[in-house]
Amino acid sequence: MSRKTFMAASLAVFCGTGALRSDEGMWLYNDPPREQVRAKYGFEMTDAWLEHLQKSSVRFNSGGSGSFVSEDGLVLSNHHVGADALQKVSSAQKNYLRDGFYARSQAEEIACVDLELNVLQSIANVTERVNAAVTAGLSPDDAVKARRRVMAAIEKESLDATGLRSDVVTLYQGGAYHLYRFKKYTDVRLVFAPEQQVAFFGGDPDNFEYPRFDLDICLFRAYEDGKPVKVPHSLKWSKAGAAEGELTFVSGHPGRTERMLTVAELEYLRDRQYPIALAYLKRREVLLRSWSERSAENARRAKDELFGIQNSRKARDGGHAGLYDPALMQSKRQQEMALRTKFAANPAFAPAAAAYDQIKQAQSSIARYERIHRLLEAGQAFQSELFDIAHILVRAAGEYPKADGERLREFAEAGRASLEMSLFSDKPIHNDLEIISLADSLTYLNEQLGAEYPVVKKVMAGKSPRARAAELINGSRLRSVDERRRLYKGGTLAIDASEDPLILVAKSVDAEAREVRQLMEAQAEIKKQAHAAIASARFALEGKGQYPDATFTLRLSYGVVKGYTSLGKAIPATTSLGGIFERSAEMEGRPPFDLPERWQKKRRALHADAPFNFVSTHDIIGGNSGSPVVNRNGEFVGIIFDGNIESLALGFAYEETQARALSVHSAGILEALRSVYAAKPLVEELVTGQRK
Amino acid sequence: MSRKTFMAASLAVFCGTGALRSDEGMWLYNDPPREQVRAKYGFEMTDAWLEHLQKSSVRFNSGGSGSFVSEDGLVLSNHHVGADALQKVSSAQKNYLRDGFYARSQAEEIACVDLELNVLQSIANVTERVNAAVTAGLSPDDAVKARRRVMAAIEKESLDATGLRSDVVTLYQGGAYHLYRFKKYTDVRLVFAPEQQVAFFGGDPDNFEYPRFDLDICLFRAYEDGKPVKVPHSLKWSKAGAAEGELTFVSGHPGRTERMLTVAELEYLRDRQYPIALAYLKRREVLLRSWSERSAENARRAKDELFGIQNSRKARDGGHAGLYDPALMQSKRQQEMALRTKFAANPAFAPAAAAYDQIKQAQSSIARYERIHRLLEAGQAFQSELFDIAHILVRAAGEYPKADGERLREFAEAGRASLEMSLFSDKPIHNDLEIISLADSLTYLNEQLGAEYPVVKKVMAGKSPRARAAELINGSRLRSVDERRRLYKGGTLAIDASEDPLILVAKSVDAEAREVRQLMEAQAEIKKQAHAAIASARFALEGKGQYPDATFTLRLSYGVVKGYTSLGKAIPATTSLGGIFERSAEMEGRPPFDLPERWQKKRRALHADAPFNFVSTHDIIGGNSGSPVVNRNGEFVGIIFDGNIESLALGFAYEETQARALSVHSAGILEALRSVYAAKPLVEELVTGQRK
Repeated sequence: MSRKTFMAASLAVFCGTGALRSDEGMWLYNDPPREQVRAKYGFEMTDAWLEHLQKSSVRFNSGGSGSFVSEDGLVLSNHHVGADALQKVSSAQKNYLRDGFYARSQAEEIACVDLELNVLQSIANVTERVNAAVTAGLSPDDAVKARRRVMAAIEKESLDATGLRSDVVTLYQGGAYHLYRFKKYTDVRLVFAPEQQVAFFGGDPDNFEYPRFDLDICLFRAYEDGKPVKVPHSLKWSKAGAAEGELTFVSGHPGRTERMLTVAELEYLRDRQYPIALAYLKRREVLLRSWSERSAENARRAKDELFGIQNSRKARDGGHAGLYDPALMQSKRQQEMALRTKFAANPAFAPAAAAYDQIKQAQSSIARYERIHRLLEAGQAFQSELFDIAHILVRAAGEYPKADGERLREFAEAGRASLEMSLFSDKPIHNDLEIISLADSLTYLNEQLGAEYPVVKKVMAGKSPRARAAELINGSRLRSVDERRRLYKGGTLAIDASEDPLILVAKSVDAEAREVRQLMEAQAEIKKQAHAAIASARFALEGKGQYPDATFTLRLSYGVVKGYTSLGKAIPATTSLGGIFERSAEMEGRPPFDLPERWQKKRRALHADAPFNFVSTHDIIGGNSGSPVVNRNGEFVGIIFDGNIESLALGFAYEETQARALSVHSAGILEALRSVYAAKPLVEELVTGQRK
Repeated sequence: MSRKTFMAASLAVFCGTGALRSDEGMWLYNDPPREQVRAKYGFEMTDAWLEHLQKSSVRFNSGGSGSFVSEDGLVLSNHHVGADALQKVSSAQKNYLRDGFYARSQAEEIACVDLELNVLQSIANVTERVNAAVTAGLSPDDAVKARRRVMAAIEKESLDATGLRSDVVTLYQGGAYHLYRFKKYTDVRLVFAPEQQVAFFGGDPDNFEYPRFDLDICLFRAYEDGKPVKVPHSLKWSKAGAAEGELTFVSGHPGRTERMLTVAELEYLRDRQYPIALAYLKRREVLLRSWSERSAENARRAKDELFGIQNSRKARDGGHAGLYDPALMQSKRQQEMALRTKFAANPAFAPAAAAYDQIKQAQSSIARYERIHRLLEAGQAFQSELFDIAHILVRAAGEYPKADGERLREFAEAGRASLEMSLFSDKPIHNDLEIISLADSLTYLNEQLGAEYPVVKKVMAGKSPRARAAELINGSRLRSVDERRRLYKGGTLAIDASEDPLILVAKSVDAEAREVRQLMEAQAEIKKQAHAAIASARFALEGKGQYPDATFTLRLSYGVVKGYTSLGKAIPATTSLGGIFERSAEMEGRPPFDLPERWQKKRRALHADAPFNFVSTHDIIGGNSGSPVVNRNGEFVGIIFDGNIESLALGFAYEETQARALSVHSAGILEALRSVYAAKPLVEELVTGQRK
């Protein structure tokens, strides 16, 4: 998932439906489902067990999950999580994203560009301190500022005190604020990747489908001081892997769920946000796909972004269909009515009773601002890597001179190192792709606001979208990292003096973009306070022991390996390695069902019966990609890489009849590494937990 | 091009910019550019020369052009024009669309399903009679009816008198009405088609691009009384074909141009119609493409529609970019201002002077109605073959009992046979494709009008789009041609008694759909009268000798075979057969750049230097696909199959610096038929003009 997907309005609240008898829940590590797991499965999660799993879990800041699988810093994630990193170290000559990579010795491991890994070290509840700073009676604008200030202060203090990356995380939409401290790794090297054909076998057509046959893995190694790190926690590898019916756990970073939105918010999603987002995704999908098909090199350049778009499109199409299910909406309406009735009956819950209309009204205001916000602030009008850089440079010049707590959130001091890493990244930027992408988004800007809208006239400067895009991209010097550094260090003076056409455009939209952002944030604040009122009334009525909506923070899910029934057909829990050859034959070997040469050659050597992919009842969502699946002993038995099509409505409600998490099996991974890739040292390291 | 594309608002007016020194013009056969061609090229178009070319030209009612190439009724068109027919005679077992077909004997020729060919026999000017019927002072609604009545009467009289298909054609948007009489062929058989891989080599990526290497041809034979027809006019084949710089002519059916729209209309196209249409096309492209990729059989079922969508999308994206070219819009504004100044200066032109504001106002009204119209009347809400059938049955029951002139235009008596042929066609309809297509369009309906809109509530019946689509398609009996006949013959009684779920849905939207159609037609009438006023003032000011905007009627263009320069690079006029192997290798042989086995095997036998495709300056547009290119002797030298990317703005203005028509060369066709397909009898027939 891309940063931009994650930047969309954040609407997390708390979830759960009272007594949970199912495998529902994306649980907090500081409030784990001990009782539920004990009651249903008779298993005791000890503190030591939890700490080991927590500290073996890795967050990919590019948007995904992973885990340490050897004490020598070996990190396992999905190929599609690593794709961004693979793309950045690839070139027309060495296409590691497509062809795979294996470092047979440590010296061959390739340093990744701007990849940051985080490992959660501790969680502290800072709710009281945050709430104390946001006093009653503040205007929404002032409340936003006060909260931003106190959150930045907490993060800065923590960073100074511990040296750890420190993020204040909003949970239960203001029901709680927790401080998450992460150990950060920024020297990360590529160890192994299979060919994309087999990592993403079946491509977009089989994405979110099951049965599947994907070796969706990628191995990295974390370094410090030029040497592989020795990590205190890493997962032992289970050679047997997961068996049907077995209790297992998933530890990862679900990106976002929206289970406790009010009906007004869900209707907004269904009627506005999803249709708009989907139309935009489909537009970009067609653009990138038709451009990709013009040449093999085009395809290579656009592949990673195109995959991200297709993935989001399919996920959202599924989520949108869920919102159109009258049963789901009906049940949400009933739950909401029941709660509102309870709130209305008790004057102590007056703020909660009033909250629903406040949310509805805020949602109407958001509907008025979202177009400008989306175009100018969220960047839909300027789909270009170089423009993003210009935008950050212009903002950085305006923000960093301010006191830490007064800045826009992404310029808080605690995040500066990460921002600089990304800003000065030497990743390849391709002018041809930049131009077609920017030309299309400028066309979109014209369509959405009209050619006569003042900002549009300024941006277009009397040119057609194609001509203007070519002029801006060809005329910009921001491809040069040195030039970026110069402008960044030079601050406002340098930015004001710059005649770089992209800097000029970014400056020309900045005032209006900031203004609409402030308007949106004020409405979000109103909703946040309203949701907090609902949350606290629910805590009072229903007690604690719930889990909050997903927010790309570390969570724990439990469940079992289990097949399901679809369209009257029983779908077994596990597929085998041999199945990939059958599926390929059935599709006549056409891409994306073609197999790498290596796989064709090694077919005989492979144990066709080895388990390959499996499904389980775990409550997961996008962002969980790469999460380890572990057994009661905390051993690695599989790695999450997808959900089935029925799981795409999980954002709104959990269900376990058909919705399933998809994983690559630990035994299948070993067998492929051994028999197809002859990666003996790697197999050794996984099995023994140490490099030789 | 699909019927639905053609059904979109028809906005034709007259074109030309006074003295034409370029190769501009899509000329009427009854007003050919004799002087221009004589002056520029010294060639005299005689009546006999024109009649021979006219009567050798064939219109494919599915949307395309062709020509007779032997006296035994052999008709040559493009593979992509024949694709619809190929799809309809294909099955999972015999995929002629993909694999090609060759009837080695007459007995093997396959009867096509509901394919109608028309050959223009005569043109009569009926402007006076039409205008006499539409008296001044009629309300727009009454004017629409009066015009419809007189046109239906003329068509009916002509049909009864001659037995020929008779269509009254609106030209110069009411500047003229002509009666076109066609000889009609409905027993059409498939003779030859190459593999789609080579017919559409390069697929969507290379569509509208040049250089190209496409054998985009398909051969049919017209039959009457079970025997091949002996046609009085057919084109002699030129073995040498077109040479660079040679004067040639294109005779075909350009679908639609919009060169004389007012600025208000162009802005509407740019700001509303194109963005909406493109978003819809991209949505359907993603839907069909992702479904196609799930299995080879899915791909086969959706291929033809998907191609049509991609083709329209690419064409419209190009046209839209043209509208965003400030130079084009500036020149349109200047032309319009110049005309308006002339009109204002002379009281005799008062109606023309007032016309621009009338058009602008009508355009605003159209903007209000277009959404409902598009969804309910143009069918965007119900993308399903079975729904189309239900819709026609419901309408037929309501319309046929009325007097001929009172009916909706598509139910005029003169067109009844064609309508029945299509309605009772036994073409394959696939439930799975029907369901995903209808589910998506029902979702679109919800998005566009909202779930609470009364018609939407009626249509959805409390179900989700997916559930409702499955219920409607699975529950309908309209797949049975007998059932269709029963309902058609039973008229209103049968329709009222029917409980077929699709009939019920079609009935439930009919009133509102008719109402919005009437509103739209009244506005179109206002525009028509306004354009007629402009046209007649221009005739008075500038004289005759202009050509009208394209309307899918037979036209003649002239031009030369000629290369061009793009991005500073010289593009030669002609490609050779050998080039296809080079392009395939460059793209690593991946679809759609893979070559059929037969081509790979016969590579050595092929004359690599034989000309394959060429470009020329002819003024063409979509609908010209399949048009013959002939030399001064009226001999066939090539067949139009595409335009280059620079030609996509030709809908709004002709230019010949870069815009080019693309053709398959007559010599390349012969060489491929001879060396790759060993189609000796066919080659003989083409060369001698007779079957042996």
